[in-house]
Amino acid sequence: MGDLSELFAPSTVAVVGATEREGSVGRAVTANLLEFDGEVVPVNPNKETVFDRECYPDLGSVPDPVDLAVVVVPAAVAVEVVRDAGAAGIENVVVLTAGFGEAGSKGATRERKLRETASEYGLNLVGPNSVGVMSTSVNMNATFGPESAQDGSISFMSQSGAFITAVLDWANDRDIGFRDVVSLGNKAVLNERDFVEAWGESDDTDVIIGYLEDIADGGAFIETAQEVTQETPIVVVKSGRTEAGAQAASSHTGAIAGSERAYEAGLEQAGVIRAETVEELFDAASMLDGQPLPENEAVAVITNAGGPGVLATDAVGDSRLELASFTDDTLGSFEEVLPEEANIYNPVDVLGDAAAERFSDALDMALSDANVGAALVLACPTAILSFEELAEITSTTQDEHDLPVAACLMGGESTHEARDILDDAGIPTYFDPSRAVTGLASLARYREVSTREYEAPASFDVDRERARDIIQQAAERPSNTLGVEAMDLLDAYGIPTPQGAVVDTPTEAERLATDIDGDVVMKIASPDIQHKSDIGGVRVGVPDDEVADAYEDLVARAKNYQPNATVLGVQLQEQIDLDTGIETIVGINRDPQFGPLLLFGLGGIFVEILEDVAVRVAPVSESMATEMVDEIDAAPLLRGARGRESVDETALIETLQRISQLVADFPALLELDINPLVATPEGVVAVDLAATIDPEELDQ
Amino acid sequence: MGDLSELFAPSTVAVVGATEREGSVGRAVTANLLEFDGEVVPVNPNKETVFDRECYPDLGSVPDPVDLAVVVVPAAVAVEVVRDAGAAGIENVVVLTAGFGEAGSKGATRERKLRETASEYGLNLVGPNSVGVMSTSVNMNATFGPESAQDGSISFMSQSGAFITAVLDWANDRDIGFRDVVSLGNKAVLNERDFVEAWGESDDTDVIIGYLEDIADGGAFIETAQEVTQETPIVVVKSGRTEAGAQAASSHTGAIAGSERAYEAGLEQAGVIRAETVEELFDAASMLDGQPLPENEAVAVITNAGGPGVLATDAVGDSRLELASFTDDTLGSFEEVLPEEANIYNPVDVLGDAAAERFSDALDMALSDANVGAALVLACPTAILSFEELAEITSTTQDEHDLPVAACLMGGESTHEARDILDDAGIPTYFDPSRAVTGLASLARYREVSTREYEAPASFDVDRERARDIIQQAAERPSNTLGVEAMDLLDAYGIPTPQGAVVDTPTEAERLATDIDGDVVMKIASPDIQHKSDIGGVRVGVPDDEVADAYEDLVARAKNYQPNATVLGVQLQEQIDLDTGIETIVGINRDPQFGPLLLFGLGGIFVEILEDVAVRVAPVSESMATEMVDEIDAAPLLRGARGRESVDETALIETLQRISQLVADFPALLELDINPLVATPEGVVAVDLAATIDPEELDQ
Repeated sequence: MGDLSELFAPSTVAVVGATEREGSVGRAVTANLLEFDGEVVPVNPNKETVFDRECYPDLGSVPDPVDLAVVVVPAAVAVEVVRDAGAAGIENVVVLTAGFGEAGSKGATRERKLRETASEYGLNLVGPNSVGVMSTSVNMNATFGPESAQDGSISFMSQSGAFITAVLDWANDRDIGFRDVVSLGNKAVLNERDFVEAWGESDDTDVIIGYLEDIADGGAFIETAQEVTQETPIVVVKSGRTEAGAQAASSHTGAIAGSERAYEAGLEQAGVIRAETVEELFDAASMLDGQPLPENEAVAVITNAGGPGVLATDAVGDSRLELASFTDDTLGSFEEVLPEEANIYNPVDVLGDAAAERFSDALDMALSDANVGAALVLACPTAILSFEELAEITSTTQDEHDLPVAACLMGGESTHEARDILDDAGIPTYFDPSRAVTGLASLARYREVSTREYEAPASFDVDRERARDIIQQAAERPSNTLGVEAMDLLDAYGIPTPQGAVVDTPTEAERLATDIDGDVVMKIASPDIQHKSDIGGVRVGVPDDEVADAYEDLVARAKNYQPNATVLGVQLQEQIDLDTGIETIVGINRDPQFGPLLLFGLGGIFVEILEDVAVRVAPVSESMATEMVDEIDAAPLLRGARGRESVDETALIETLQRISQLVADFPALLELDINPLVATPEGVVAVDLAATIDPEELDQ
Repeated sequence: MGDLSELFAPSTVAVVGATEREGSVGRAVTANLLEFDGEVVPVNPNKETVFDRECYPDLGSVPDPVDLAVVVVPAAVAVEVVRDAGAAGIENVVVLTAGFGEAGSKGATRERKLRETASEYGLNLVGPNSVGVMSTSVNMNATFGPESAQDGSISFMSQSGAFITAVLDWANDRDIGFRDVVSLGNKAVLNERDFVEAWGESDDTDVIIGYLEDIADGGAFIETAQEVTQETPIVVVKSGRTEAGAQAASSHTGAIAGSERAYEAGLEQAGVIRAETVEELFDAASMLDGQPLPENEAVAVITNAGGPGVLATDAVGDSRLELASFTDDTLGSFEEVLPEEANIYNPVDVLGDAAAERFSDALDMALSDANVGAALVLACPTAILSFEELAEITSTTQDEHDLPVAACLMGGESTHEARDILDDAGIPTYFDPSRAVTGLASLARYREVSTREYEAPASFDVDRERARDIIQQAAERPSNTLGVEAMDLLDAYGIPTPQGAVVDTPTEAERLATDIDGDVVMKIASPDIQHKSDIGGVRVGVPDDEVADAYEDLVARAKNYQPNATVLGVQLQEQIDLDTGIETIVGINRDPQFGPLLLFGLGGIFVEILEDVAVRVAPVSESMATEMVDEIDAAPLLRGARGRESVDETALIETLQRISQLVADFPALLELDINPLVATPEGVVAVDLAATIDPEELDQ
């Protein structure tokens, strides 16, 4: 994608479909552009002038170079106009026209043509079905919405146009400013990834926020966002979280929303901070916009009231933050300046008779303590406290320490002026202590994101050719599944499997069984028989002296069940003792947006009933695989809870990475389940594997 | 406790410690009372008049009858003044003076004296360490806070005085009104239960809200609240939810906060709606105050914007509510009045070009649908929509249907006037769709509470005398624990135990083993040996022919380990096959506030690692016991998940009730654990019981 700086800061904007007709979109957008710092050129074959500006019949006729064309013509001619723009050498186009992908199969065809045209000319195209773009850098409001943004450094993208209008109306009331705003529309060409990238490169965007209903290409988004979030925070409301919500989103936009589990994993891996509500989005954005990052996750609460202090403490307990433990030096300083009855431990209660100065003394001491990463000033109205004075002095103290401070002013009318003072100083103010704490927590969250070191997935030495052959074979079968060769596939990628092989005579079966310690498991080996257990085609715990008989019996069952089936013989395996190991499950399935998702959990009820699983978008690095093992609730079971010996976690973590490498190497592996992968103190062994192949993905 | 109506609506209020001295509490409270509808009598031996009112030297000298005395004298003389009030026949006293229970051992002694004096005279005493009381019914502000409440029908109690001041300041800014307000202070006499009861009886309180840090007597509170909430909703922020918060609360008030688990169970059983944050508290209170209850849990969302509709749908998915499915009739009506492109399924998208009337048509149709219990009107600003018109027309439509409606107006300045209109109509307005949905959900929650039928716990026919003897015996032992007779205790309460007995010769052991099917379990029977397994004193899976030898071996081990121990012989039991059953745990422990807590979960990792337990304050009714079994995550395991046969849930539920009856009958049973209680398709059997007795509770 080209450089988007001229999209948001053009010198000349042409409006195709400009008009003065009351109630029309063409009028709304042209009128909004009258404040624009640059030049506005109306284009309309039926007009001489629009708003006293000379009007041209088409884009080709405009004499000056145009940086941005805004298209508000009817759907039937929109693609033509976009082609004109391309032909005229215009690089940036915003299509406000609706009637594309969101409007049935005819619209979908039109959208395909639009995409082709954009691609032909290499256009940066926003929309279609967009409300437009805005940038306060050049006083440009190229939208048909009723509100212009105030100046600020938050850049904002939204997949809902109404959401932009609503948020601007609300934000203007609260003096929240923006840099660039874009209504993504149908995302035919430019999507969230492009804007994240562009704003990441811009010095004037401090925080990126978004309302998204889907993400067009999850993998690419993760890659871009990981880079951008090293410098610039991204906070997103991704709606359609719930099943009902996802349904509502798809009926509304026609976007195929991927699974919530994939978005959850993908956004977390991308370093994107996810807000669940609009208030959370702006609580986080204001904090990230106005305040520095904390040094650690410990917060000091300075309050003049015990009860609200308890509420703040509860909120800290619910968040990723913790209450700071002050050093003895700090406690000593508190004792010097605070009354005897004051609580000098966190939350610091400066008491109901505190004036602003006592607050700021305590704040200053707290922020000087190396144990403290951030502070919350939490004040209730009293006869003695001046909120305005508190606001002034808090802002000064914050300035001196360059650590983040949030202010919770628990009152109404009496706090208004103080809020304005703090707003000007970039210190977000709240009424509810829990929202103030959530705001501070989002800073701590971003601190974690911005200091992440993304580790490349390990590349193990594997037998890729052998794996390719196995997958190729399976793809040629009508079922597209792996059969007896499943174990070989794992073996090719270095994942331990039980000792064993396919044998085709009773004698060979006996010989192999003798080589294997203990009893064996025997299964009919036939690519044509899927559900072997159902026909008694699996025998477990077979002692060596019964192997020959079992062989005959299994083959007879197979022939009896399906006389025409190809029977290769019997698969004979070492029997893994499930009592000494813990059954785990490692699975892969493919998400339409994010691609391969790697899943890990304990076998049986843990995955099936308790849904205790860890999920990541593959490929995973060693540290991600380690996180997966750590994050399941049942993790203590792997670590010797209840008197068991710990299993070999290293082997488990390595297996997750090797499977991740396998699915990255073979997009044709659609689904894959090792169930169980038995983990013991000595290592792991994959006892069973089921996999489905997509033959269409084979030619790589 | 006496009638509290005169506390909140006195004719005459005396202020003991009244003064005009600037900055004093005595001045603040007297000045606040100048607006009072009744008579204010200053009492102060050093003044002739206060604020031009005649001042009396003490309460005994006031000629007219006084209904309420407000005490603002120093701590040293406060108890004396309260005694004066009692002697003068005054029934209601509010003690603002601090320096009692919150102030060390000297203060605690003072508080004990205060309580004794109040009890001697039967006083309704609020405080000490209270900010005071208020009632808008008589324009009484008997607090020293800077704010008076506006008129309304929410009554409000708070264990934090600062919280009252903060909330009033904030509420006045938002035109939220109150009926009675009380600062509970140290709750030496009157506590939350008393106010809940009083407001429950009052016709003028429509909603009761509270900020609580502890509950003085959990059992009594549950009983009162269950009754009150049949008519009047109670919404409470109980702080100290988290470990850190509980610690902060206890350092702040000196109250012993019980465990969060007990509060969670207790408040739920009491029918109290719990809010986690201050905003949630008022979102719920405004909704309960202004709107009728829904008919069901299904909500219709009417919106002019797809994106916000998806956000609302997500919020519905997160809540107890569900999106309503419209009847065909309703869908037909929508089709008639809405444009073709409108989405007529829920959320109903009336489109961006909708004026207020289209909204109200859709709202009217939705509320006429029997499938719909409540509606959310969700509007974004557009050029066509007048928010004021929408507000008017929504209020009229809501009125006609008597179903609850919430309004989400997603905008700032442009929505202000509409908010006022809706406020006046009692329709709460929100900016964030998720808060609007949470508001509606609190109505549905209260609907469930108000229609509850509290079922009395069943009373099973048990052998109480035998149980008493067993407990008595155990109490006489130094360990205060149950030994071999534990099984007899369960047997006395009709809980199945394994077949078996204590035998004292090898021959008797053999005879008993022969009577029992299968192998047996044998344990040393000695009240002096606690950890039998550690010394090899437990043998499982003993076949009949090894029983005699095992007997000799166990007795020898006991003698060897502790030569002086009393050895009763060997406890010999049927061995329960744990493979065919599911191990569950039933436990009791006692909470300082709520008394006996009954716990249920699956054995092993489920309780210990996954903390998958259900907890209730005992005694429990049949439906509560059923809920407990339903509510654990692992419940599907009991119901035949993964190909098992379902266990006998009826027997499990009955056992919970019988244990509940046992601990209710014997307060001396401090802790009790049946671990495991094995549940099979045929019933349950308690394999092991540990219990601790409190000898001091024996004399009942």
